[in-house]
Amino acid sequence: MGGILIPFSPTYSFMARILLTSGPTRQYIDPVRYLTNASSGRMGCSLAEAAVAAGHEVVIVSGPVSITYPSQATVHWVDTTDEMLTVAQQQFEHCDGLIGVAAPCDYRPEFVQGQKIAKTGQPLVLQLIETPDVVATLGADKKDRWVVGFALETEDRRFRALTKLEKKSCDLMILNGPEAMNSEENHVEVLAKDGSVVATLQGSKPDVASQIMQIVGERLIQA
Amino acid sequence: MGGILIPFSPTYSFMARILLTSGPTRQYIDPVRYLTNASSGRMGCSLAEAAVAAGHEVVIVSGPVSITYPSQATVHWVDTTDEMLTVAQQQFEHCDGLIGVAAPCDYRPEFVQGQKIAKTGQPLVLQLIETPDVVATLGADKKDRWVVGFALETEDRRFRALTKLEKKSCDLMILNGPEAMNSEENHVEVLAKDGSVVATLQGSKPDVASQIMQIVGERLIQA
Repeated sequence: MGGILIPFSPTYSFMARILLTSGPTRQYIDPVRYLTNASSGRMGCSLAEAAVAAGHEVVIVSGPVSITYPSQATVHWVDTTDEMLTVAQQQFEHCDGLIGVAAPCDYRPEFVQGQKIAKTGQPLVLQLIETPDVVATLGADKKDRWVVGFALETEDRRFRALTKLEKKSCDLMILNGPEAMNSEENHVEVLAKDGSVVATLQGSKPDVASQIMQIVGERLIQA
Repeated sequence: MGGILIPFSPTYSFMARILLTSGPTRQYIDPVRYLTNASSGRMGCSLAEAAVAAGHEVVIVSGPVSITYPSQATVHWVDTTDEMLTVAQQQFEHCDGLIGVAAPCDYRPEFVQGQKIAKTGQPLVLQLIETPDVVATLGADKKDRWVVGFALETEDRRFRALTKLEKKSCDLMILNGPEAMNSEENHVEVLAKDGSVVATLQGSKPDVASQIMQIVGERLIQA
């Protein structure tokens, strides 16, 4: 990056190409029904806008959402977690860092029924297995690239988020709660590798996203 | 309708108050993850528009969708199948008929986890039980009201749709396939109690909805 930028515009010397995963994924149990979550893609969109505003290039890999991402970003649409991982791996090759704000569905049925399951009045037992972890898989192969993860926790929040930071080879972990999902607002803690709380941020998703991008810029891009 | 051709507006003598269920429902397995389907509410919205255009009063009970229903309709928002049933039962009391175009999630976990299920690397066994059938429950208590159901089938389509027509006490059953979900188009068969195919309709959802409302008007409202 950056070759065109050197004369007369020092701003651009820190420009990065950022990969953003965003939105939910879907794991079908039959042709009609699927497991998912209420992720709206709104935080991913706000981060993309903040990154574009800071002069970065943005590549988004997004599950199904009805939000409109900034036109300056390149968007790759996916449906399942496996698809998100495959496309994200391809794109990560050409990026400087990853912000994994997607909420991939992390369980899928062991067997997917080819036809719509008909109701019989009897219980239905569904054997679910874990899908691959997108951020952990990319993190394990990050080399000199940086990785920012998001953790959505409902209990032992900081402990679980720091465990994920470690396991997913993240440089920073953004901790939030389920109240963030499909909301206009967010309230997050930014955690660093040494376990410290870098910042506590609260406000509209665009405001929180700008502040996160500021921290990412200072700690990971200009570093 | 043709009522407009007679002076002094006898159109209104055929006006009905129609209850429409629309959209998907969600059944949570923990505070974050849920089972659902890709129903967009688009067919429900088109039917509401056609019913309003035909001079009827429309009450909608809708699961979470991002579509905008006609402003002339009263909309009650729900999340789960049980909520849809409860609100629909209250509203059906004051209506002349029901068009059940919603795609309620028809399984729910026997136990809902209070905290987000943490990944352990092990399979997760989910015991699902059937949710109450909204149209069948309203149909069983319909008295002199009419009921139009929708059946989304992937195999033995006409047979299964007619079985549902009978079991759900419907006067007409609209049969479609999974390709209708979250699509702009639809292709349906309108089936009657005697097993006959009243009509085969194909086109944009607004076109198909207008034709369905025409049939409902002639066969059920003016009858």
